[in-house]
Amino acid sequence: MLHQVNGKPKLAALDTMNYWIERTNAELRETLKHVDILMINDSETRQLSNEHNLLRAAKRIFKMGPATLVVKRGEYGAMMVDKRGVFCVPAFPLEEPHDPTGAGDSFAGGFMGYLAACENKSDASLRRAMVYGSVLGSFAVEKFGLDRLRHLKRGEIYARARHFAKLTQFKL
Amino acid sequence: MLHQVNGKPKLAALDTMNYWIERTNAELRETLKHVDILMINDSETRQLSNEHNLLRAAKRIFKMGPATLVVKRGEYGAMMVDKRGVFCVPAFPLEEPHDPTGAGDSFAGGFMGYLAACENKSDASLRRAMVYGSVLGSFAVEKFGLDRLRHLKRGEIYARARHFAKLTQFKL
Repeated sequence: MLHQVNGKPKLAALDTMNYWIERTNAELRETLKHVDILMINDSETRQLSNEHNLLRAAKRIFKMGPATLVVKRGEYGAMMVDKRGVFCVPAFPLEEPHDPTGAGDSFAGGFMGYLAACENKSDASLRRAMVYGSVLGSFAVEKFGLDRLRHLKRGEIYARARHFAKLTQFKL
Repeated sequence: MLHQVNGKPKLAALDTMNYWIERTNAELRETLKHVDILMINDSETRQLSNEHNLLRAAKRIFKMGPATLVVKRGEYGAMMVDKRGVFCVPAFPLEEPHDPTGAGDSFAGGFMGYLAACENKSDASLRRAMVYGSVLGSFAVEKFGLDRLRHLKRGEIYARARHFAKLTQFKL
């Protein structure tokens, strides 16, 4: 994919899984050198870095290429780690989740879609991307397969993003 | 304890565990009628309510007496549910957690200690209590037993609470 892009892309993100970590580790490591953001789940993070603690795992992964690690944690939300620090977003609490299939990929789509649209990679934008990723992941699980995303309205996305603010924000 | 308090307490919180849920369920249920805030972990929430989904579990628990449920989720943080909605706070990411023993009790101490000090139970205060609970829980795991809490300074508590804001806050 990266070879097909004209010139160096402004931002490259990669999602991987146990199969590639185990079976094609050398190729994965070579690809990671050209990646800015790695988006994987808890167990993939531990497997790739051979380190249980996620902060120490992130440091090992930074040495492989990516400057940003996004750890997807299913019903517990997601965590972004870079040299500036850590940002956490919860999963949207749902009373009736129907099908978790594709939630992580929908997260990745919402995250990258937001960054592609806003065309900047500031800390504030990456945090918003985490929220939009979580928003899309939460809609994905509401119905079977892609059914919920098929009929999703832009206004519903913004409304749920505002709901995420209510879910997490406090004043000291 | 409640019988020993002169008059009705302004706010009563209760922490319980599998032993009391299984062995003294009737007495626990009677006590819950007089409790405002129940603070338990994921598995205790599911066991007490006989319901896997935490939002639906919260609704069942509200019928038992408490108006607020705080679900402690260890390394994933904590979630507060009441009729107004849900508030989530992550666990503070640590590179070297030493001993998780007592983290949940330290959370409860920080939570109730803050509410006792501020003498109000508004939504804003309960959210801050969640943050101070998480702050105390995070210090508790930094050293063995109570060693870290024994030497904890008030300024360190406030500094970590500000760090929690950095960890979670975003602007849409």
